Amino acid sequence: MLMKIDGGITAPAGFTAAGVKAGIKKSGKEDVAIIYSSVPAAVAAVFTANKIVAAPVIVSRRVVDKGRACAIVVNSGCANSCTGQQGLIDAQSMAHMTASALNIKDCEVVVASTGVIGMSLPMGKLAEGIKKAAANLSVDGHQAALEAIMTTDTFPKSSAYRFTLGGVPVKIAGIAKGAGMIHPNMATMLSFLTTDAAISPAILKQALKQAVEVSFNAITIDGDTSTNDTVCVLANGQAGNAPIDSGQGEDYQAFVDALTATCTDLAKLVVRDGEGATKFLEITVKGAVSLGDAKTAAMAVAKSPLVKTAFFGQDPNWGRIICAIGYSGAQVVTDKTSLTIGGITTVRGGQGCEVDAPSLKAAMAAKDIAVTVDLGLGPAAATVWTCDFSYDYVKINAEYTT
Amino acid sequence: MLMKIDGGITAPAGFTAAGVKAGIKKSGKEDVAIIYSSVPAAVAAVFTANKIVAAPVIVSRRVVDKGRACAIVVNSGCANSCTGQQGLIDAQSMAHMTASALNIKDCEVVVASTGVIGMSLPMGKLAEGIKKAAANLSVDGHQAALEAIMTTDTFPKSSAYRFTLGGVPVKIAGIAKGAGMIHPNMATMLSFLTTDAAISPAILKQALKQAVEVSFNAITIDGDTSTNDTVCVLANGQAGNAPIDSGQGEDYQAFVDALTATCTDLAKLVVRDGEGATKFLEITVKGAVSLGDAKTAAMAVAKSPLVKTAFFGQDPNWGRIICAIGYSGAQVVTDKTSLTIGGITTVRGGQGCEVDAPSLKAAMAAKDIAVTVDLGLGPAAATVWTCDFSYDYVKINAEYTT
Repeated sequence: MLMKIDGGITAPAGFTAAGVKAGIKKSGKEDVAIIYSSVPAAVAAVFTANKIVAAPVIVSRRVVDKGRACAIVVNSGCANSCTGQQGLIDAQSMAHMTASALNIKDCEVVVASTGVIGMSLPMGKLAEGIKKAAANLSVDGHQAALEAIMTTDTFPKSSAYRFTLGGVPVKIAGIAKGAGMIHPNMATMLSFLTTDAAISPAILKQALKQAVEVSFNAITIDGDTSTNDTVCVLANGQAGNAPIDSGQGEDYQAFVDALTATCTDLAKLVVRDGEGATKFLEITVKGAVSLGDAKTAAMAVAKSPLVKTAFFGQDPNWGRIICAIGYSGAQVVTDKTSLTIGGITTVRGGQGCEVDAPSLKAAMAAKDIAVTVDLGLGPAAATVWTCDFSYDYVKINAEYTT
Repeated sequence: MLMKIDGGITAPAGFTAAGVKAGIKKSGKEDVAIIYSSVPAAVAAVFTANKIVAAPVIVSRRVVDKGRACAIVVNSGCANSCTGQQGLIDAQSMAHMTASALNIKDCEVVVASTGVIGMSLPMGKLAEGIKKAAANLSVDGHQAALEAIMTTDTFPKSSAYRFTLGGVPVKIAGIAKGAGMIHPNMATMLSFLTTDAAISPAILKQALKQAVEVSFNAITIDGDTSTNDTVCVLANGQAGNAPIDSGQGEDYQAFVDALTATCTDLAKLVVRDGEGATKFLEITVKGAVSLGDAKTAAMAVAKSPLVKTAFFGQDPNWGRIICAIGYSGAQVVTDKTSLTIGGITTVRGGQGCEVDAPSLKAAMAAKDIAVTVDLGLGPAAATVWTCDFSYDYVKINAEYTT
């Protein structure tokens, strides 16, 4: 059974964290964070699918491939992306400085950066920040660490659960930043998770992939994927459960459920913080011939600017939703398609239905709206989350000057 | 040699047209058009790729498959889309009424509709309109026909050229409507072309596909594809050239060039009329390993809401463009990628360059802006056109109430 708990990223046993002000962010707020496990932890990560990849992603991929890490170091205010050979050297130095301060190896440090693209890391400031953060690591440091990874986020995003593996109490926690690529050159989505579960790196990787597919990979704000996107989990085994080394069985399933719940909470918070968002939209496509089709169709609806502006305008515009389903690439048969908006059926068998206008108006006025498309063709279903498209989206994205 | 001419859709020999007010549009403006060839013409068409297809598209596909037609009948104000079995019967009746009035066969009439999705055609009004239009066909009718196909367009869109095939003078002309799926349930893009060239239906089809690929399929306003999109060309042979019956040789090439020029003019006019557009953007990707890669990458830039809002804000935000190239799916190597905005190189070898800020600011202030990405990997290039994303885009699309 999964129980929500407090305590942030340091709730699982054996983890400490710190967030400090190094002067990298223009705002002067916290901008360097370290998350640290007192013992080497299994590590797994999912990185951006963008072919233009920031330097810290290149460096971290090598660390994660080895399967073990002790620390994650993050800076905000500068993405270290499109920075060429120097960027790579800087990302490696960032790992090295952290390793020295913590008396661990370079290859045990995951690095991440978020902020302006095309700007080099201010290495002097960063060095000071890393030293300070390493010296300040504590169980109470989770809040400062969370603040240090934020850029344009309007609120901090964290989630934590307690559950059991073979009767042994285990904890999992995560933090995230990202609110769409709000500012022009802002690199977006970072999420870091910690757990005291004992699990092998290979199985942790499998579990993370599974969890990310239905959480972080099921959200969209504007369809753009940044050069720095990273989701990374450390599992240090301090809970003392029988190590999970198979991708099957009750323990694995319990772990995946906990990881998925944490990732889903964080992913939804990212959508709720979508730039200029006034609505939280849950798009479900069911009756699809395959899971791929269900997700493709749901994502087409979630990404359509016409659908997103209609929800901002509180217009129950089923024509746009049906249209997006039609061009999604999923197998669709007009006569079998039905649509429900906020619990009210608006399309049945491919044709508009008579609806109670006041009820539909009330459903569209809600902040959270569920949209369900039934393709009527098969057993597969998928759910994705997105937000609407408002004047403020354009304002935030157009009025910033590089 | 290609020469621009006046005269609209009836400029080619043997064509007449009419546009009349049938009371289908709320505005009371022209809403039924007929384009007529005095002799059976070769016909080819490209229809929407959306899997939800409007009834007139289903009916017209059958006509076009036979390769010969005499007339195109179009109504605006109602898309006859998502209208089920009744919609199909209505679209067939529309063809039948037109055929009766013109004393031709039902299977020689292409039908098209544009307007609100989910509403049935008002058949009484339509019958009157078709009779009136058939009785009013004339060479001077091209302007009224053009007005009758418009919905939310802010200006009429037409283009015509004169050229020669084997020394024989030939004309080609086209009209188009569409400005993005501006109004909530508006079905978008229609284009009709006429030519007095003699060409076989099979080769006409090949030529149209080639022309559409680099014109109508190279524009995007909001990425949404409607249920009614149709591009249809009639070629009636009245110019008296030696019939083109091969997809090779000088005549075929001259014809494709003229058809492409006409389609490209119309496609660009559709972009210029994009909802709320303040900028006309030409996105070229060169140095790609394949044509498919070049177009995929260019379209990713053209569709990115972040890129589009940046141009609205006149922000030379190269991070967003590089990011879109990176996630497009095209083969990309960071270090080989360069970017020019309005003639000014902003990225070279994957890194930002020093630029003259006032020059870049001036380039971004222009109404028409060329963006060129060089992937540095191969010989392929593609160009697409789009517009920016403004407050008015959100306003137009959010404030309409179904």
